[in-house]
Amino acid sequence: MILRMSSLFVRTLRDDPNDAEVPSHRLLVRAGYIRRNAPGIYTWLPLGLRVLRRIENVIREEMDAIGAQELSFPALLPREPYEATNRWTEYGDNIFRLQDRKGGDYLLGPTHEEMFTLLVKDLYSSYKDLPLSIYQIQTKYRDEARPRAGLLRGREFIMKDSYSFDVDDAGLDASYASHREAYIRIFDKLGFEYVIVRAHAGAMGGSKSEEFLAKAAVGEDTYVTCPACGFAANVEAVETPSPAPVPYDDAPDAHVEDTPDTPTIDSLVQLLNGSFPREDRPWAAEDTLKNVLMVVTQLDGTSEPLAIGVPGDREVDPKRLEATLYPAEFRPFNEEDFAKYPDLVKGYIGPGVLGEKGSSGIRFLVDPRIVEGTRWVTGANEPGRHVLDLTVGRDFTPDGTIEAAEVRAGDPCPRGDGILEAARGIEMGHIFQLGRKFADALGLQVLDENGKLVTVTMGSYGIGPSRAVAAIAEGTLDEIGLCWPRNVAPADVHIVAAGKDEAVFAAAAELAEALSQQGLDVLYDDRAGKVSPGVKFKDAELIGVPTIVTVGRGLADGTVEVRDRASGERQEVAVGEAAGHLVGIVRG
Amino acid sequence: MILRMSSLFVRTLRDDPNDAEVPSHRLLVRAGYIRRNAPGIYTWLPLGLRVLRRIENVIREEMDAIGAQELSFPALLPREPYEATNRWTEYGDNIFRLQDRKGGDYLLGPTHEEMFTLLVKDLYSSYKDLPLSIYQIQTKYRDEARPRAGLLRGREFIMKDSYSFDVDDAGLDASYASHREAYIRIFDKLGFEYVIVRAHAGAMGGSKSEEFLAKAAVGEDTYVTCPACGFAANVEAVETPSPAPVPYDDAPDAHVEDTPDTPTIDSLVQLLNGSFPREDRPWAAEDTLKNVLMVVTQLDGTSEPLAIGVPGDREVDPKRLEATLYPAEFRPFNEEDFAKYPDLVKGYIGPGVLGEKGSSGIRFLVDPRIVEGTRWVTGANEPGRHVLDLTVGRDFTPDGTIEAAEVRAGDPCPRGDGILEAARGIEMGHIFQLGRKFADALGLQVLDENGKLVTVTMGSYGIGPSRAVAAIAEGTLDEIGLCWPRNVAPADVHIVAAGKDEAVFAAAAELAEALSQQGLDVLYDDRAGKVSPGVKFKDAELIGVPTIVTVGRGLADGTVEVRDRASGERQEVAVGEAAGHLVGIVRG
Repeated sequence: MILRMSSLFVRTLRDDPNDAEVPSHRLLVRAGYIRRNAPGIYTWLPLGLRVLRRIENVIREEMDAIGAQELSFPALLPREPYEATNRWTEYGDNIFRLQDRKGGDYLLGPTHEEMFTLLVKDLYSSYKDLPLSIYQIQTKYRDEARPRAGLLRGREFIMKDSYSFDVDDAGLDASYASHREAYIRIFDKLGFEYVIVRAHAGAMGGSKSEEFLAKAAVGEDTYVTCPACGFAANVEAVETPSPAPVPYDDAPDAHVEDTPDTPTIDSLVQLLNGSFPREDRPWAAEDTLKNVLMVVTQLDGTSEPLAIGVPGDREVDPKRLEATLYPAEFRPFNEEDFAKYPDLVKGYIGPGVLGEKGSSGIRFLVDPRIVEGTRWVTGANEPGRHVLDLTVGRDFTPDGTIEAAEVRAGDPCPRGDGILEAARGIEMGHIFQLGRKFADALGLQVLDENGKLVTVTMGSYGIGPSRAVAAIAEGTLDEIGLCWPRNVAPADVHIVAAGKDEAVFAAAAELAEALSQQGLDVLYDDRAGKVSPGVKFKDAELIGVPTIVTVGRGLADGTVEVRDRASGERQEVAVGEAAGHLVGIVRG
Repeated sequence: MILRMSSLFVRTLRDDPNDAEVPSHRLLVRAGYIRRNAPGIYTWLPLGLRVLRRIENVIREEMDAIGAQELSFPALLPREPYEATNRWTEYGDNIFRLQDRKGGDYLLGPTHEEMFTLLVKDLYSSYKDLPLSIYQIQTKYRDEARPRAGLLRGREFIMKDSYSFDVDDAGLDASYASHREAYIRIFDKLGFEYVIVRAHAGAMGGSKSEEFLAKAAVGEDTYVTCPACGFAANVEAVETPSPAPVPYDDAPDAHVEDTPDTPTIDSLVQLLNGSFPREDRPWAAEDTLKNVLMVVTQLDGTSEPLAIGVPGDREVDPKRLEATLYPAEFRPFNEEDFAKYPDLVKGYIGPGVLGEKGSSGIRFLVDPRIVEGTRWVTGANEPGRHVLDLTVGRDFTPDGTIEAAEVRAGDPCPRGDGILEAARGIEMGHIFQLGRKFADALGLQVLDENGKLVTVTMGSYGIGPSRAVAAIAEGTLDEIGLCWPRNVAPADVHIVAAGKDEAVFAAAAELAEALSQQGLDVLYDDRAGKVSPGVKFKDAELIGVPTIVTVGRGLADGTVEVRDRASGERQEVAVGEAAGHLVGIVRG
């Protein structure tokens, strides 16, 4: 197949679009792959659609290979199934809702667990029908609060979502494993760097859950890995190791001290080291206990305050807290909230006023590191004063623990003795064992071997092909443009006719034709007239087809130049051998 | 590729679904191709999706062959572009509207003229860029008042819509012609009976317009053809031939007569023939003038009454009137409306009170057959009385003509001396010359050869692949099930292992494997246990793969039975030759 630049529906842009935040977005717009229609809503131009389709086909092949069967649900869905699982409410502002002309409630599907579950319930009734894996590649909708980074977080996007249905847990484990293997093959084929990490199940409930993250500095997700034991997890899913309790029989009594002018943890630590020096080691931020006040709002609209205690060297990580509290939402205390609790002395809040037995009665949960016997410097609930040697289990008892503090590189591995490393990634795939949550809610049961009704157990497996376009672009681009891996490139070879000679165009056209007849997809820059070779080269670099062939000056000596877009390596090849040479490169 | 019935996600149903109105809908549900989620909203099961994808690919191939380039717009669209062309309002209740979390107005695209126009405006600027044809195959939404007949009139459906962009009318003619040829090739390949008819441009404005209708008794569209001259048109687009004026110098004066007990045209005609017999020929319904009162509501919400005069042997055809008045809507007069016009004597309304000069002042438009000099029996605006010999141009002058009366088989051809035949069809494709309507509204101009800005002229070309699934099913099914044409069938061959013998299953599996290796798609009924051969045969007939192979009793004699689903012809073929024989049948 030959795409001719003279007629291809594309215009490359010299300037970056105003709203492009990340390099892949900038280049996908500039190179004419996508165009923005509204926040998080894009049109796929011919080049972009070709990349998208190739990614979809890689996914489809591997899904089919594990026996998953493709079907297609509507995007416009009635309210009722989502009501049955409470997600009509649970999704809050994150879904698009609408009414039809008769006032019936509908939504634009953000995910289709309910529909898959109900369909299997409709068709199947026996354990003999299982296991079953079904999937779709389909347009989904989420009304993101902050659509960003082009295709990375869109409001209309493509998802491959598959579901497995098994009669028992062993079956689910097997289905999960076969999807996991398929995902590994898919991500290997797509050609970008990724890592598989433990994930928080979040909205879906369920147990075992892993994410496939593309390694990318622009990623929204942070993950940690342990070089020692191989542990890898999204920070949302890291369980903080809880140290053993410390004996405190000999611990000094708690004592309140004046700590004037210590509005920050740093200034407090400085004062401690000046006024109350320790013998064994200097005071550090990690010796202090910071109590953060939040208002947590449940789905039913009820709110209650929550105090979270974390070591003073760590912030509360909003994404970790969000994952922990889901589906409830939270916000920090404001002045009005503080006004309702006069016992809370802002900047000097200590455990004394918190928890079940504290004077405020506010629920008080602490970081898992804050175990019995540990001693802390924390607010004394009086302006300008802190309490030292406040000991857990003796001087205060929190109402429980909470995963909310940030996870950092250098933290101990929760699995062993290793030290965690941290990096950022883009969530590209998510596989998890849903278990029986949806089957229970929607009554999906089958008869087992003994004729008894049993509830089906499900797995859920998603990949975002549209996000993959951006993530692959992001992971492979360089300073001059896009740089596609061979399996997803919009064409196999980009031929540039560089010159004004008719002979140049004739030779270039002949080569394009020869490659096309061999089954290669060729992008042929046949533009004549005022389009200079320089412009053509720049466009070829920007568009990022993996192999660029220049038919130009060398033609006099009977050669064309073959250039590898990624490495920049150039090679002169005899015209007569060019087609064979290129087929060899493309087919590997 | 082998689909095994033992694991294929399908369940055939013995009973018709409650809501299925037409045979294709009934069978597509019963055979497990689709499932309904809400009115006009369906899920594609694996078999259905396979047929849909094959149809899409036939369309894609032919679009690519004429140089049209595929891209893909979002379905969720911002209001602004549709505001610019007034269609945000014009579509009324027929589009789904929604708001995002920030209150921004969006719609689910019912059609994408605006988006295509704006995209070309964004990318292109010169006559050198044209001609251009671009298309998408994409999910569209219309909030139909009466979704019906399964996929035939859905609210979420798939459309291939393409648009051509040319610098002048000659270019548009050429683009239109090449699309028309491509459509002919598509419809020929899809394998169902169709007719190309003149169409009303309707919502889109523009000039030349043709529809591709699938011939089908259940179709919503009525079309007429003239065997003499080949004229063919949707009745919505038929222009009623207007006869030459008739001299009326010698016409008798109009005279009012008592016509008691004549509530219907028939009773009136009977009374006329009894009490006022004519010499030349008996009175007939076509000698009477029936005046029908409507309220017409414009887009801006303003309403006004309209009287429509048609010969008494014809009804006003709501679909023709709708096409004529579009985008205004209409409804018949109700009691309240009549109460406002005391001059209108229900059942006896005559021209005297109608029109610009009539006492009611109600606008009065008549069928084009009601020309100057023709004489009519019509209401005398008094209860129980009619006027005879009321002559157009002498006794009354309508305000104009209107296409509203039904078109019938037997009507004269508007083009020549032929007589029209009538039939029903399903609109499968619509091609038309939009002209400059959208380019004007949205400012799509390019520089011409002389450096002057000229407005681009557009063509619009649509096919509904999801509707095509139903239309092809409808046109090919028989009393026992679906019966797919080879090009769109979900598989090439359906192999039934009919027996309990291991040898039967072994031979059937081997044949399936051999065919699959030759590149054929095989549906293999490998169900063991309690599924009887009878059930398998019934399922095969219902599912409708064009060639059914039975591996069963004949195996003892070394043969299998090959049956043509459509004709029912059976043939015994030696096992060893079966694969070659079947490949021959499939490949033609």
